[in-house]
Amino acid sequence: MKIQNQTSVKAYKSGGFIGRYQKLVRDTVIPYQYSVLRDEAPDTEKSHVVKNFINAGKAVRGEDVDDGFYGMVFQDSDAAKWIEAAAYSLINFPDQKLEETVDGLVDIISEAQDTDGYLNTYYTIKDKDKRWTNLLEGHELYCSGHMMEAACAYFEATGKDKLLKVMLKNAEHIYKHFIEEKNGGCGGHPEVELALMKMYRATGDKRCLELAEHFVDTRGCDVHFYEKEAEKRDWTVWNSNPSDYDYMQAGKPVRQQSDATGHAVRAVYLYTAMADIASQNGDKELFAACRRLWESITKRRMYITGGIGSTVIGEAFSVDYDLPSDTAYAETCASIGLMFFASRMLENDLDGEYADVMEQAFYNTVLAGMQLDGKRFFYVNPLEVIPGISGVSPTHRHDLPVRPKWYACACCPPNAARLIASFGSYAYGENDDTLFCHMFADGTVEAKNGMKLTCETQYPYGFDVSYKIEKGGKLAVRIPKWSGKFGITANGCGIEVQPKKGYIFLDVSDGDAIKITLDGTPKFAYGSVKVPALTGKVAVMRGPLVYCFEGADNGDVLSLSLRRGGDITVGEHTETPFGEISHSTVKITADAVRRDDIDTLYTDSIPNETSCKAVGIPYYTWGNRGENQMRIWLPESLV
Amino acid sequence: MKIQNQTSVKAYKSGGFIGRYQKLVRDTVIPYQYSVLRDEAPDTEKSHVVKNFINAGKAVRGEDVDDGFYGMVFQDSDAAKWIEAAAYSLINFPDQKLEETVDGLVDIISEAQDTDGYLNTYYTIKDKDKRWTNLLEGHELYCSGHMMEAACAYFEATGKDKLLKVMLKNAEHIYKHFIEEKNGGCGGHPEVELALMKMYRATGDKRCLELAEHFVDTRGCDVHFYEKEAEKRDWTVWNSNPSDYDYMQAGKPVRQQSDATGHAVRAVYLYTAMADIASQNGDKELFAACRRLWESITKRRMYITGGIGSTVIGEAFSVDYDLPSDTAYAETCASIGLMFFASRMLENDLDGEYADVMEQAFYNTVLAGMQLDGKRFFYVNPLEVIPGISGVSPTHRHDLPVRPKWYACACCPPNAARLIASFGSYAYGENDDTLFCHMFADGTVEAKNGMKLTCETQYPYGFDVSYKIEKGGKLAVRIPKWSGKFGITANGCGIEVQPKKGYIFLDVSDGDAIKITLDGTPKFAYGSVKVPALTGKVAVMRGPLVYCFEGADNGDVLSLSLRRGGDITVGEHTETPFGEISHSTVKITADAVRRDDIDTLYTDSIPNETSCKAVGIPYYTWGNRGENQMRIWLPESLV
Repeated sequence: MKIQNQTSVKAYKSGGFIGRYQKLVRDTVIPYQYSVLRDEAPDTEKSHVVKNFINAGKAVRGEDVDDGFYGMVFQDSDAAKWIEAAAYSLINFPDQKLEETVDGLVDIISEAQDTDGYLNTYYTIKDKDKRWTNLLEGHELYCSGHMMEAACAYFEATGKDKLLKVMLKNAEHIYKHFIEEKNGGCGGHPEVELALMKMYRATGDKRCLELAEHFVDTRGCDVHFYEKEAEKRDWTVWNSNPSDYDYMQAGKPVRQQSDATGHAVRAVYLYTAMADIASQNGDKELFAACRRLWESITKRRMYITGGIGSTVIGEAFSVDYDLPSDTAYAETCASIGLMFFASRMLENDLDGEYADVMEQAFYNTVLAGMQLDGKRFFYVNPLEVIPGISGVSPTHRHDLPVRPKWYACACCPPNAARLIASFGSYAYGENDDTLFCHMFADGTVEAKNGMKLTCETQYPYGFDVSYKIEKGGKLAVRIPKWSGKFGITANGCGIEVQPKKGYIFLDVSDGDAIKITLDGTPKFAYGSVKVPALTGKVAVMRGPLVYCFEGADNGDVLSLSLRRGGDITVGEHTETPFGEISHSTVKITADAVRRDDIDTLYTDSIPNETSCKAVGIPYYTWGNRGENQMRIWLPESLV
Repeated sequence: MKIQNQTSVKAYKSGGFIGRYQKLVRDTVIPYQYSVLRDEAPDTEKSHVVKNFINAGKAVRGEDVDDGFYGMVFQDSDAAKWIEAAAYSLINFPDQKLEETVDGLVDIISEAQDTDGYLNTYYTIKDKDKRWTNLLEGHELYCSGHMMEAACAYFEATGKDKLLKVMLKNAEHIYKHFIEEKNGGCGGHPEVELALMKMYRATGDKRCLELAEHFVDTRGCDVHFYEKEAEKRDWTVWNSNPSDYDYMQAGKPVRQQSDATGHAVRAVYLYTAMADIASQNGDKELFAACRRLWESITKRRMYITGGIGSTVIGEAFSVDYDLPSDTAYAETCASIGLMFFASRMLENDLDGEYADVMEQAFYNTVLAGMQLDGKRFFYVNPLEVIPGISGVSPTHRHDLPVRPKWYACACCPPNAARLIASFGSYAYGENDDTLFCHMFADGTVEAKNGMKLTCETQYPYGFDVSYKIEKGGKLAVRIPKWSGKFGITANGCGIEVQPKKGYIFLDVSDGDAIKITLDGTPKFAYGSVKVPALTGKVAVMRGPLVYCFEGADNGDVLSLSLRRGGDITVGEHTETPFGEISHSTVKITADAVRRDDIDTLYTDSIPNETSCKAVGIPYYTWGNRGENQMRIWLPESLV
């Protein structure tokens, strides 16, 4: 069964939990980010992105470039991700003024394109001769990829194709260089591959598909490519090691890979493209590689929060079962990329496990990346934070106790913005006769196959999901693995349907009311004993939400243990203050034990312990009340 | 009460546990290390140490230096530490041939001394003009310090003063440069300070004391000294950061310091000198600083094994309570240095807590540093090792599951050798009328104050310690803090004596037989809840020995928990095979629980568990049976 998730659902208007987040992105993230791009945000490091494009335009026209290029070699991509987020937001919230702003930026970008189709402000401003000489670090293909994604999204949102044409011309330039002129290599940071697949779908141009296939299958074939490339040039961006093959997933041809390695964002961007091509071409060998890599991630290298890339060293995957809570890297962008990968895997194989992981990553790590007011962001998402150690100890410097403000290297904030704004394309999919509900999101969905429905739910805090069918057909709804029991009613009557690979299938007619009731009982979670960091530990989940225990609710968290099999009571679903921010959430209260501290470092006396209650909040809401202790995994007490 | 521990006991001949280790050092470590110094050890990286001294001699005489200098900038210190170990060994085991070998090496070293007293092969061979221009990294004072220690030890062992005279001339050269010519600064790696104190005691030359005081009090006074020094030169050894003040304990004057910071070996070498000077001069301000630093280490920054310097980043102290078991650095040399510091603290203040820590460091981390056959060594002493992660994961590369062979940078093996060979000077101390027994060691002790006794004990495996008094006086014996109960008999009759600050005091006469019975009951140990890595965990100790649980005895260790309050049975004290090595040891067996693994990474089902036994071995014996799992701290099960 082939499903098209991405860009395939004709329209989705969300309300409820997701709608509230999408409004936050519209009202706060998108305007703030635009002010950053234009260097108009107060107290924020200079971005210069818009100025770079203006200056590149001058360079193309042979004019003087007064203030040159500023920023990272991949600075262009910030503009691209902003356009993409704005485009998805425009689908939900038409906004003439925002559209005009995007149009203006597209005009500036189009002027920066060289006559041969090349588009990258760093090289155009600084040194045209360096084009395509540093695929390892140069990020030219990466920046092109992000702008292609922006072009496709803006075309989808508005029908305007100016940027799409610019990027098709850019794709032609890349095609000429890599295919016609047979220059070897592929980008050190995968991204263009998945973007070219979107370009192929948006334009129908087969060269885009061919290029995506080419880059995917080139990777890792000449293991020493980057070393040879480095020998030929006398400059470097970061002095990256061209022999660190696994860092850029280039240690062997991708079809032979079995372990998720290297920089986690690069990895999942690559795997996303692999899964997309596998689905497009029915390429079973490529899908088998995707499946192995998926299992490597989800069975051996993923946090319970859907966080991936556990080590700060290279922002990378570590070895199997090396999943420390306190020194976790677990970059927000990596979990976003994991959602991309999961979404494409679903297109190959309708199996609830892909959607389970997609949801796990979204409701925990991706949402945790953003402060509840949309103004500050985590790159790094540890599962334990202890002020005094986290952010301070030499091995914990990256694990910050509160979200920092906008970074100069602003990859995660706009990535989160575009993901949230396009949530519907991950939640829903369709094929000729079926509408697939992978995730539960309040709102109205209209499929190209003619089906239309409205979903009402308070998910992830309410576990009733009601579908009001406006135009019928076949409906496939995922039953999450965590919901061991569930109920279904059709027009008020209970029906029995057994899920197949995590989905129930229903024939629905116009006017039907379908209600799915999932299991909202909070549950204890345990890790495999193969994970050293989790032995003797227990966590609490409710639905897709992982809970955590913060100092603000519990005082000292380090002295708390959770009682095995103890009661967990679920609080009211109410607006809750987080400092000055208010957020609608549900707390849980669990039976716990608190240990007295001792006045020495070690003791041979059994410590004194007393019964108490531990109050948990959803992990994604942590760190919104200033510096305090936070733990997901607590020791388990058996009495 | 002032005690002189180091070099003050007239003679000590050990038997039992320590004697066996001292024979291992004599028979294996010292001969092997000498073959390394001469580049005669098979399959071992070139040392070139002896050749460096020969070549420096040629350079001094103006002859051609054919094969120049080879090795690290501190290569000379390997020869010094070997001479020092050989000297201590000669005290226990007179050996004409070894003494002749040392004499020959001393001749070579004396020829390498420049006419002005300068002695360092790196600079003498490579570039005399670079002398004293890189105190940050140059290790000139460090190498001088180690050779001074060697000179004092060899003089003590044999009465031969050739090397002592060489090093006194070297001290005069240093005195001229730093005191008379008023050149600023002190060594980036403290060491010469504690060595000058030994020189002062061996020679009575007050300039040695003055120099030691000068270097101690200079440190941290001009915070920017190393930066200014770096600006003046156009070369570097490792491109070290001169602004990383805390790394070399130079962030503020030592008398104002309160936190143990930076490279752990440097720190404790410095603190040792500070405590030595405080004792020598009755300097209460300096002792107060020592006390603060001691508490920083032992109350907040030390492993239960006496390991210190928890982070690999800079081989350094981290922040308070950051004591991860799996990524621990805990260098062998740092625990040796902690013993030096503890020994000097005892000279300031007879308090059992200093000896408790000295013993904790010795019987756990220091001994763990050496394979049971004396042939391989750990620098790094983690408290948890999981093959597949340890030594492999980017954050665990330094934590090796088995001891590597001799390193090019051979600091720990000779350091362990000299410590073991001189154990008696840490175990015993004296003043005018008292003999102090800080640690329990089988053997005969003769004090300069005329007292003489023989100690018989199977410690650390037997807990009866019998003293046969040959020449009486006052006897002070430490009662370890871990021994909550103890008994004393004098000539067979039980007597009641209450310890004062951890010591009992007895008047003993010729022929008296004193027997101390300590508590050998194995005990559970717990960490403060301020240590995140230890919450919910428990360990087992017996006497001074920390136990650990290895795969070789237990299969999968990660699935084991120890039952709270469960039985711990003590095995026989027998020769036990560790692979091809045999070692006399005692295993313990504890009530435990084994958890079944699950086939997923996470589950919401309470895991299946069954009762079992966990077998522990002393931590210092771990890693002698090939790669396998090892844990000191196990989760605690309460049922």
